[in-house]
Amino acid sequence: MYLPDHFRETDPADVAGLIAAFPLAAIVAQTEQGLIANHIPVMTEGDAALIGHVALANDMHRIIPDGTPVLAIFRGQDAYVSPNLYPSKALHHRHVPTWNYQVVHVAGRISFQHDDKTKRAIVGRLTRDHERAMNGDAAWRMADAPRDYIEGMLAAIVAFRIDITGIIAKAKLSQNREAADHAGVVGSVEARGLDMMAARMRRDSAD
Amino acid sequence: MYLPDHFRETDPADVAGLIAAFPLAAIVAQTEQGLIANHIPVMTEGDAALIGHVALANDMHRIIPDGTPVLAIFRGQDAYVSPNLYPSKALHHRHVPTWNYQVVHVAGRISFQHDDKTKRAIVGRLTRDHERAMNGDAAWRMADAPRDYIEGMLAAIVAFRIDITGIIAKAKLSQNREAADHAGVVGSVEARGLDMMAARMRRDSAD
Repeated sequence: MYLPDHFRETDPADVAGLIAAFPLAAIVAQTEQGLIANHIPVMTEGDAALIGHVALANDMHRIIPDGTPVLAIFRGQDAYVSPNLYPSKALHHRHVPTWNYQVVHVAGRISFQHDDKTKRAIVGRLTRDHERAMNGDAAWRMADAPRDYIEGMLAAIVAFRIDITGIIAKAKLSQNREAADHAGVVGSVEARGLDMMAARMRRDSAD
Repeated sequence: MYLPDHFRETDPADVAGLIAAFPLAAIVAQTEQGLIANHIPVMTEGDAALIGHVALANDMHRIIPDGTPVLAIFRGQDAYVSPNLYPSKALHHRHVPTWNYQVVHVAGRISFQHDDKTKRAIVGRLTRDHERAMNGDAAWRMADAPRDYIEGMLAAIVAFRIDITGIIAKAKLSQNREAADHAGVVGSVEARGLDMMAARMRRDSAD
């Protein structure tokens, strides 16, 4: 990824925060059938790995051998940036349009697990995290469903683990603009409801 | 991509609509340096190609030889789906969480163009489309900027073209749920401000 220094996201908390807020990864691999991608919600296991599961019917666990390098792409909010958003445009007209976005690329080696214990642990943690975030005390729990039903669902999935070999992250958020122009973009992304991007940009303003 | 028939997006208008609404593609290639991805706003050229441009400083035009297969991934809105959203949960409790999303995968062969005419045409069309959508009659135009400035900006970019070899699209939008459960999910994604996903799901309800 093209990554000028001023757009490099270096704080591990920001990187982990983006993955947690936008957990649906595009997991890409080069296979004998060419490049393939699957969109899967994942979680981090500390700094070491990404973990998740796919349907047994999803061929990726058959066509991607254990140990294959994959790229997991996470993307936050994105926004077209018009020169009209820069107050300095009126002064010198030396601006062109661009696009703001936040991404995290996690490179690693994937492996698949079929054992019940691993699958149950991953499904349990995914459920806890997402249910607590959405439903609080009313969180759905695996134990709410009949045991035979959950057994059947677990039999129909495969767990995977991506052992992380490298992470790069980019926050292309008008950091290279002067203060008034930066503020113009913040106002616009906020007006468009891109709350997380606006909050991240406001933090840059405060720095 | 794992693509059960009930999640396959087949209408070319829906596919084109998703690309137009979410034009920031993740363009992935297998290179000598491994898998790389860059996030770039692109446009379609009929059914034949995707076109766009990158910074001359972006190494992708140096490390991806012309004719290399690439995958351009477009993604619309996505949403965690809790079993709590299904009214039928209370009746039989036979549900588990899932994730809804819309994606388009465009496979093709990429080539890069350095000539001024191609670059100017692509920048012009990108600008027209996005400025008209955002600013209407107040659209910024390339002619608003000084000529020497635009010349300099054009000299600092490279155009590219991805000749399309295949497209697959997935709309994982609870189509496999009974009507009341489907409606429960629509209500939730609407409440979360996922307007485009809600609109697409409402169309399914009306079918």
